[in-house]
Amino acid sequence: MSLREIADSQSFWLKGDGPEADIIFSSRIRLARNLRGFIFPPWADSLTLKRVSEKVLDAIKRCNYLKNARLIDMNKLSSIERGFLLERHLISVEFSRGGSHRFLVVQQGEMLSVMINEEDHLRLQTIFSGLQLREAWRVANKLDDELSEHLDYAFSPQFGYLTSCPTNVGTGMRASCMVHLPALVMAGKINELLKGISQLGLVARGLYGEGTASHGDFFQISNQVTLGLKEEEVVDNVERVTRQVVGQERKAREILLKRNGAQLKDQIGRAYGILTNAHLISSQEAINLLSKLRMGVSLHLLPEFDMKVLNELLFLIGPAQLQIKSGKNLDASSRDELRAKIIREKLTGSY
Amino acid sequence: MSLREIADSQSFWLKGDGPEADIIFSSRIRLARNLRGFIFPPWADSLTLKRVSEKVLDAIKRCNYLKNARLIDMNKLSSIERGFLLERHLISVEFSRGGSHRFLVVQQGEMLSVMINEEDHLRLQTIFSGLQLREAWRVANKLDDELSEHLDYAFSPQFGYLTSCPTNVGTGMRASCMVHLPALVMAGKINELLKGISQLGLVARGLYGEGTASHGDFFQISNQVTLGLKEEEVVDNVERVTRQVVGQERKAREILLKRNGAQLKDQIGRAYGILTNAHLISSQEAINLLSKLRMGVSLHLLPEFDMKVLNELLFLIGPAQLQIKSGKNLDASSRDELRAKIIREKLTGSY
Repeated sequence: MSLREIADSQSFWLKGDGPEADIIFSSRIRLARNLRGFIFPPWADSLTLKRVSEKVLDAIKRCNYLKNARLIDMNKLSSIERGFLLERHLISVEFSRGGSHRFLVVQQGEMLSVMINEEDHLRLQTIFSGLQLREAWRVANKLDDELSEHLDYAFSPQFGYLTSCPTNVGTGMRASCMVHLPALVMAGKINELLKGISQLGLVARGLYGEGTASHGDFFQISNQVTLGLKEEEVVDNVERVTRQVVGQERKAREILLKRNGAQLKDQIGRAYGILTNAHLISSQEAINLLSKLRMGVSLHLLPEFDMKVLNELLFLIGPAQLQIKSGKNLDASSRDELRAKIIREKLTGSY
Repeated sequence: MSLREIADSQSFWLKGDGPEADIIFSSRIRLARNLRGFIFPPWADSLTLKRVSEKVLDAIKRCNYLKNARLIDMNKLSSIERGFLLERHLISVEFSRGGSHRFLVVQQGEMLSVMINEEDHLRLQTIFSGLQLREAWRVANKLDDELSEHLDYAFSPQFGYLTSCPTNVGTGMRASCMVHLPALVMAGKINELLKGISQLGLVARGLYGEGTASHGDFFQISNQVTLGLKEEEVVDNVERVTRQVVGQERKAREILLKRNGAQLKDQIGRAYGILTNAHLISSQEAINLLSKLRMGVSLHLLPEFDMKVLNELLFLIGPAQLQIKSGKNLDASSRDELRAKIIREKLTGSY
């Protein structure tokens, strides 16, 4: 199958139609599951990986929740194609290295997906627009229930779900919200906030998960502990803290607007002016400017913009996206040119 | 009289309708004249200055070329008002310091003006759009002829017109063209060019005359020698060299477009985007961006723009212009805000 079809289709979680979507991009639930009697992927031989993948794929076929899902064999992808899936938040950095008997199953709209033979035998992911962590959890649960009818999960009455890495043992769940906090960054309050989050047993990371730098103004807030807490408690906890963060971001925006309104309007105006008129733009600069634009729209300092367009531009202008979309390898300056063109056209509505 | 009227009226020489006006802003002739029997202004006492000014003003009243001209008593102006006249190229830095018995006479449209008791008793100025040095000279000559009917000029058969500073003795004439050379600046060729100009007996200076830095991409090319050459030769010389400079600028633009077309389009697009969307802008940044915009229009890399609008923005957004226009003292950040607003509105045609 061609990834081009995915490139041309919509990521539903980018629609920006969820609650608080001007600050909370998305709510994500990830469940780690393993099959009883099979060694965890990092230590498994090729035959084991093969047998696991066959079992899981067979179970997935019987799953109502994954009807019509696309099956992608990671081993058949080029590095650009793997980068494409990573940029779209469909796979992890670890998985993007590829390898035999590794598969991605992704439902249309990309709100539901399963990685097979990542760090665990299965990694289920649901991702929703805005603050919809409970809904994401509900759907992940349903999918998990369906799969468990056909698969024998490694589960210990004492510890819960067993996982490759001890930090995931227990619920095997990670609940996370991706948030946009430009005003807290501008006001120099972000480090204090991130520290506060970690004291609450949660963790704030960059956009592409563990070990990656945050993209300017964008952060992921997620639970650190999977053991000894009920899933519901974890979801509640992440949701509550995220709501507090949103409150602080709104407060910071209000203060900025009051104290530095002219500067803020200027920066947002310039961001809009550059994005709609540049002919070369790096992804880093584009993300920084789109971040300002996004805040400007939320603060009504700019004419109405479809949040979906801004979200898609933020996530779908990475180097791999551009190359898959255009169907060819592009050097850095050609990418900068194409990126600028896409942004211009999308923002001025002539795309 | 109020300078506000001047602020609200047009500078005809900024219309941009002269030959080669996309590169040559203006052609200017300045004649230095003194009255026989009166000491030069820098050494004159107050009574002498008074008598000179009375004689000159009396002659000017009888002058057809200066009918309906405005008379401005420099002594009655605030420093902002004097700065305003300097920014509009109506007076020199020296004259902008003010003082008793110093007057500016300026014809509507600002193409014709006379400073009284500057360094010389009279300084006649004509300024035309584009490359029209001969026309500017013709008009200056006529004005000079008219005035000389009513005034007894200090003239030596051996040296010509006598002037306060020896560098002006002879014709008393300075012929200059104001040129816009962004591509030569970008290509790093400008210093070589300026050096070449000085070897031809001409001089290249910044926008506001002697001792001022050039404003980024804008230069004045003028004659250095006033003694031993006929006025016609001087005019021819300045015009010929200016034409050569224009040729080099066009060549440099062509090469830039061929070799760095994407970068050039990007820079010009960004300049347009920032100018039409910024809410705070310093005059230095505005001039730099307007310079790019001007080149972009000339190279047809942007939609059609009225050159007049760009020229007026370049010359009429200085600190003093803004304060006279708005009728009040403005601090730096208020000026930056008003400047950005004027630029936005003028460029988007909603002014």
